[in-house]
Amino acid sequence: MDSVPLTRFKLIVAYDGAPFLGWQSQVGGNTVQDHLEAAFRKLCGTRIVVHGSGRTDTGVHALGQVAHVDIPSPRLQSWPAALNAHLPRAIRVMDCSIVPPEFHARFDAKGKIYIYRIYNGPVQDPFEFGRSWHISGLLDVPMFTQAAQRLVGTHDFGGFAANRGKPGEDTVRTVHRIEVEQSGPIITLTFEGTGFLYKMVRLLTGSMVRCAQHRAELGWLDEVLAGKPVSRPYQPSIGCAITQD
Amino acid sequence: MDSVPLTRFKLIVAYDGAPFLGWQSQVGGNTVQDHLEAAFRKLCGTRIVVHGSGRTDTGVHALGQVAHVDIPSPRLQSWPAALNAHLPRAIRVMDCSIVPPEFHARFDAKGKIYIYRIYNGPVQDPFEFGRSWHISGLLDVPMFTQAAQRLVGTHDFGGFAANRGKPGEDTVRTVHRIEVEQSGPIITLTFEGTGFLYKMVRLLTGSMVRCAQHRAELGWLDEVLAGKPVSRPYQPSIGCAITQD
Repeated sequence: MDSVPLTRFKLIVAYDGAPFLGWQSQVGGNTVQDHLEAAFRKLCGTRIVVHGSGRTDTGVHALGQVAHVDIPSPRLQSWPAALNAHLPRAIRVMDCSIVPPEFHARFDAKGKIYIYRIYNGPVQDPFEFGRSWHISGLLDVPMFTQAAQRLVGTHDFGGFAANRGKPGEDTVRTVHRIEVEQSGPIITLTFEGTGFLYKMVRLLTGSMVRCAQHRAELGWLDEVLAGKPVSRPYQPSIGCAITQD
Repeated sequence: MDSVPLTRFKLIVAYDGAPFLGWQSQVGGNTVQDHLEAAFRKLCGTRIVVHGSGRTDTGVHALGQVAHVDIPSPRLQSWPAALNAHLPRAIRVMDCSIVPPEFHARFDAKGKIYIYRIYNGPVQDPFEFGRSWHISGLLDVPMFTQAAQRLVGTHDFGGFAANRGKPGEDTVRTVHRIEVEQSGPIITLTFEGTGFLYKMVRLLTGSMVRCAQHRAELGWLDEVLAGKPVSRPYQPSIGCAITQD
């Protein structure tokens, strides 16, 4: 019997993931979704479900996570400013726009971009804690590019998924681009694709690092992709940043 | 009656100033100097005084603060790693080297470089909190360069010091360089000089911002430098980063 007209909004959200238990709402709260829904409750006086385009794990940051919400009365002049006034300062709504009611943050995602940063130097810059993976030993940077060439494309990435994917899950994915950039001690790996398996970017990064450390051969990557029973990829404990189209 | 031979070390220290009450040791602790001295006490079993090249205020960061210490027995292989193991992760000793006993971190400083970052955009990137001053309105960026040209050089900067300087203090200083750079929403002001008065960089930045906001004329800067009784420079609440030669 709800006859209030609803307006669908698309949100672009940036957050420093360090203080939160990931994106997805959970009992006990302190997730990004929980904080966003609490801000909407304060502004709208009712529960507004925030639909994210994907989930991020604890410690993973977002530069442009997309989400959508249905608002009963979009009378506010500036939604970003109003929401940001009720959000922890590590979460910022960067933009808010009215979209057609068919728009869906998850199903309409054209692709996802994950950025993984590595700090390669003897002592990690204190401004890089939680924002890059510190590797003090030598890294053969051109090896990252060679590894990227073997991983880009459409493959069964089951060997690069946590627990080899969920039971019965189709583990074929397309990675359009893996870009390697170096700026001083920072090596940035940018992964672009239509979708990624659970912890796949982390496992791809760990495996590329193994090659750049000369602790694995490039051929090992092919064997993991081929589903051969070789040693498992290495999973770093630190996450990455996500940005979405 | 102390006959233990002492070795003088030069330290290069980087820190994210957010969690600390500035550099200088104080009752109650939690300053950068206190944390460094606590780490030395653990490693040497005795009090080692850390002499910094300068002091930073609460919230001010350091990219390369210089300090010196006298160590009774420099038998450790890697001082940076040993010290960092006993330091909060927001303080990192980047380098440690043996210097002649005449070396003094403060008296031998050839100059100091202060970096002030401004974030100019509607919503501040959550990764920039505490690392830049958020200004959401329009800024006339070329005006920063014009203001810099009037401020560079040897002047009586008393009008740009907190409380116009200490009683009887010579407030003449030489600013060798003020560089203005823009990269996306970030405007970086780099000040280089032999020494700066208390809060001088903050007050210079606030005054340059006033000009870039068209809330003050460039001629007002000349009047402050000339000691004329004009309106006082604006002091932003956020600090800047320091790096030293």
